[in-house]
Amino acid sequence: MTVYLVGAGPGSADHLTLRAAHLLSKAEVVLYDRLVDPSVLALIHKEAELIDVGKRPGGSHTQALINDLLVSLGRRHESVVRLKGGDPFVFGRGGEECEALQEQGIDCEVVPGVSSALSAPLLAGVPVTHRGISHGVTVVTGHAMAGARVDFRKLANPEITLVILMGVEHRGLIAEELQAGGLDPQTPVAVIERASTTAQRVIRATLGDLDGLEISNPASIVVGPVAALNYSQIASLAPAVNS
Amino acid sequence: MTVYLVGAGPGSADHLTLRAAHLLSKAEVVLYDRLVDPSVLALIHKEAELIDVGKRPGGSHTQALINDLLVSLGRRHESVVRLKGGDPFVFGRGGEECEALQEQGIDCEVVPGVSSALSAPLLAGVPVTHRGISHGVTVVTGHAMAGARVDFRKLANPEITLVILMGVEHRGLIAEELQAGGLDPQTPVAVIERASTTAQRVIRATLGDLDGLEISNPASIVVGPVAALNYSQIASLAPAVNS
Repeated sequence: MTVYLVGAGPGSADHLTLRAAHLLSKAEVVLYDRLVDPSVLALIHKEAELIDVGKRPGGSHTQALINDLLVSLGRRHESVVRLKGGDPFVFGRGGEECEALQEQGIDCEVVPGVSSALSAPLLAGVPVTHRGISHGVTVVTGHAMAGARVDFRKLANPEITLVILMGVEHRGLIAEELQAGGLDPQTPVAVIERASTTAQRVIRATLGDLDGLEISNPASIVVGPVAALNYSQIASLAPAVNS
Repeated sequence: MTVYLVGAGPGSADHLTLRAAHLLSKAEVVLYDRLVDPSVLALIHKEAELIDVGKRPGGSHTQALINDLLVSLGRRHESVVRLKGGDPFVFGRGGEECEALQEQGIDCEVVPGVSSALSAPLLAGVPVTHRGISHGVTVVTGHAMAGARVDFRKLANPEITLVILMGVEHRGLIAEELQAGGLDPQTPVAVIERASTTAQRVIRATLGDLDGLEISNPASIVVGPVAALNYSQIASLAPAVNS
């Protein structure tokens, strides 16, 4: 009678937590979405029921339906895992799911994951904070730009690294707003596509050039002087977890 | 001939990644600091050499000495792990250590960890982003306030949750600056002491009250409307990883 909202990390199962792996090995039902990597799904107990609730464009699973499904499954099973890419409370809508469960008296445990927002830069060799260069990091999404919810001018702060998730579509507008807020067009930018997977690709550019780049989703955009650093990773050459 | 800079997560080994656990089980030498939990140290191979490089007040291991030690050990051993609380690239000075190793031609792999900055709020039931309430999150430290490096007035943004690490000492000044920047004194605040350990304690207050609270380190301070939410955790009742 517990629903676990579990962060799956940025991609590869290497970055799954021990608690997450333990819960996957025990769960009766696992709900997952399109950001969860096959290497993570491979750790699920063979007898478990798997439900793909991926919110694809045009897909049928709205958040309200997912909430109802979690409540319904939570009533019928001892252990239900809701797997989410990254961390459940960093743009994961985990709060909403937890709220829906709590309202129905169903226990909910949230299990933190390695956030894609912080690990995508790391896996590209970019430290989001670095002595004398960046004194902090801000994480936002760019997908609500049409509704202008996030005021990017206010986030134009050369001291603080900016990580933008789901910002590919509106990158031109975001870059404009950041420059209007005072950021130099020469501010370094790093774009990380498909972080932590074998298809990871890193593009280095400047804020002024961001709009013209060819980028494919999912991608994270890092803006700030640290984006020019490259403490390059050899993670792609690393052995698999169990080797 | 590889030095691994490994994120140990917020505390309990439950939140260690599979890759981190794998590396700990294989390393010849492990360097750790005071933020690393005993449950994590328990996963280190029995034959491994353990070196405590904790930078305690008055301690003798400066960052330059740690860098030199890593280079020296990296030359002599196949596999050296440098364990860091949280994530190596979020105020972990991992960039500096990587730079020192690369300059000497020693391979360095950075392994992301669950950042304390994001997981401490989660483990206190606080989602750092939440639909309609918080559109992003900023993470900074408060320990350089004397030198006034971080301009907290610029971070006074009611749309973006603020997480302050190492901010206990200067919390009065930080609260003043945030209010001077425009934040309401009634803005909710949550303080999480010793996140993820059995001694975890959560204090709920407002920005105006922050200075008067009794807080002991290590603690994270969350400022913003989400700090009033409580999607309460049952993690403290959760079984240990291997049960």
